[in-house]
Amino acid sequence: MLLLVGLGIYGYAGLSVKALDSLLSITNIYVEKYTSPMLESEIDNLKQILNKEVKVVPRWFVEDGREILQLAKSNDIALLVYGDPLIATTHIDLRVRAENNGIKTRVLHATSSITSIIGECGLHMYKIGKIITLTSEIQSISSIYYTVYGNILSGNHTLVLLEYNQEKNLFLNPNNAFEMLLKSEIDQKYNVFSTETFAIVASRVGSENQSIVSGKIKSLIETEFGEPPHSLIITGNLHFTEIDALRVLIKTIDEPTDNSKNIMKIAEQMIMKYVPKARKALEHAKNLVNDDTSFNDIFENAEYYISDAEKFLQQDKPELAVLSIGYAEGLIDTIRFLKGVNMWE
Amino acid sequence: MLLLVGLGIYGYAGLSVKALDSLLSITNIYVEKYTSPMLESEIDNLKQILNKEVKVVPRWFVEDGREILQLAKSNDIALLVYGDPLIATTHIDLRVRAENNGIKTRVLHATSSITSIIGECGLHMYKIGKIITLTSEIQSISSIYYTVYGNILSGNHTLVLLEYNQEKNLFLNPNNAFEMLLKSEIDQKYNVFSTETFAIVASRVGSENQSIVSGKIKSLIETEFGEPPHSLIITGNLHFTEIDALRVLIKTIDEPTDNSKNIMKIAEQMIMKYVPKARKALEHAKNLVNDDTSFNDIFENAEYYISDAEKFLQQDKPELAVLSIGYAEGLIDTIRFLKGVNMWE
Repeated sequence: MLLLVGLGIYGYAGLSVKALDSLLSITNIYVEKYTSPMLESEIDNLKQILNKEVKVVPRWFVEDGREILQLAKSNDIALLVYGDPLIATTHIDLRVRAENNGIKTRVLHATSSITSIIGECGLHMYKIGKIITLTSEIQSISSIYYTVYGNILSGNHTLVLLEYNQEKNLFLNPNNAFEMLLKSEIDQKYNVFSTETFAIVASRVGSENQSIVSGKIKSLIETEFGEPPHSLIITGNLHFTEIDALRVLIKTIDEPTDNSKNIMKIAEQMIMKYVPKARKALEHAKNLVNDDTSFNDIFENAEYYISDAEKFLQQDKPELAVLSIGYAEGLIDTIRFLKGVNMWE
Repeated sequence: MLLLVGLGIYGYAGLSVKALDSLLSITNIYVEKYTSPMLESEIDNLKQILNKEVKVVPRWFVEDGREILQLAKSNDIALLVYGDPLIATTHIDLRVRAENNGIKTRVLHATSSITSIIGECGLHMYKIGKIITLTSEIQSISSIYYTVYGNILSGNHTLVLLEYNQEKNLFLNPNNAFEMLLKSEIDQKYNVFSTETFAIVASRVGSENQSIVSGKIKSLIETEFGEPPHSLIITGNLHFTEIDALRVLIKTIDEPTDNSKNIMKIAEQMIMKYVPKARKALEHAKNLVNDDTSFNDIFENAEYYISDAEKFLQQDKPELAVLSIGYAEGLIDTIRFLKGVNMWE
């Protein structure tokens, strides 16, 4: 039998009565500490509270999994992991492989840093969009950019987990993360990140020296956050009770602001840009053919559809807005083809 | 001092060493059980493990909060709540009010049903979109519909929590929930829900008689799921390791299928519908003016922009695709205004 036990976010003292009870009868206890920091003293405390030996195993050992699975065929084995054990795909994979090999599995869930961080900030769980991990690899940045963009457009917050690998002594600090996010703006240009963007940095949540700080990126980028692990939250639209919570429950350097205010849907950007252009071209076209009444219907309809584009946008029907402005442009442009003039200049 | 303690998903046995230690010195212990079921026997076990009295308090008592806050000014008070305590906005609100009144607060996080359910199903945490609650009120359904639609368009799964209120003995069972979702399709028409939609029902996660079943809605709607609480997951695009996990870790009635296959962006629907229409109208228009070469440029450009619409859609630029087809329609339609003919019929 393979038992996956979550250690939660409080170290050995976070183990539940149920977990301690289950571990009582198990001799083979493994601990993996590669996804989160765990000091030697923490391992010692774990041995003491369990009153038995535990084997600290490296990342490859869990990912490979063969030794654990071999042993679990005829023995009860427990693997202790930080947080809620099935958040990491490695542990799901191990469980599936065990069951496929006829090995019974059980899971004892535990406190996850994900729900704890969101709660500690006083943010509403149902306003959290897709969760992502930012790694130091430059390739990961564009998918982060579009995830945050999409979440903010829907008014949602984005929890950004920062790469942490104790084995390789590799972790991304929030200051570098903000630099990466600001740099991504130069390429993508949807106004997702600027030095004015409001964000939250949650550090060491669950530990004695937990720290949560919010503010604009320009303030946070110059703040020292100390030891990992860290996570960021890029907020979307903030409910007033969320703003209250940020002010009262965590350290807030700058006034919380609504990051969604500077962000527009692609369709919205198009309408803002193309409507005035089309209006100007239409006036120009009218002047160019002012003695010819055969175009009156075309001009009237163009005007009508330009207004429609604005109306559809207000009604949150961006696709119809874009269709309307495209149609108006088509009508106007026929004057160019028929009269050989350019009214767009 | 006000201490908010999460009970997690395992009842009294889920209390951590840290929580038991903290509760040792606190005399005033309240338990709220209105967001999740808690049997009398569970309360008895709680008293036994804590070796002291606990007061079970109703919903209004926590929402009102005045008595708790008054007492907490000069006493240490603990409020025990199911799951991770700050997932419910009521508890965040209580904490903020306490701090605003100069009352120190502490939180002991615990296992949340949210991360547990996702893990038990073997789904990837970073593929979970916005989380929502479905209530029996008919008004909630359209926001659920569009949340699931948005999540699936982004390839994400949707965790749908079902209304639960023990005090009012009010809970939504999965069968009724599926009926509501199928009914919403009749109004909205984006192919989000049909009897073929793949979904998961997670019941009583954490308890001894936990059950998780997946399948098509047509199978699930006829399944008996037993006592609450229940949650649903409407899956989006499934990774092959997620499919493996569903097959091995939970009961899967029907083969897992990709719910995103039948769902199209609004822009996509427009292009699929308008491109063939525009092609036909263009041919018709050409025939109507076949002796007049002055429209050649217009026809050429219309053809070019219709093709562009298809290309932009393939390149995942839906806004440009809609703009192009709108422009082509505008060009074609001028023939109608100038020649007094209708080529769209």
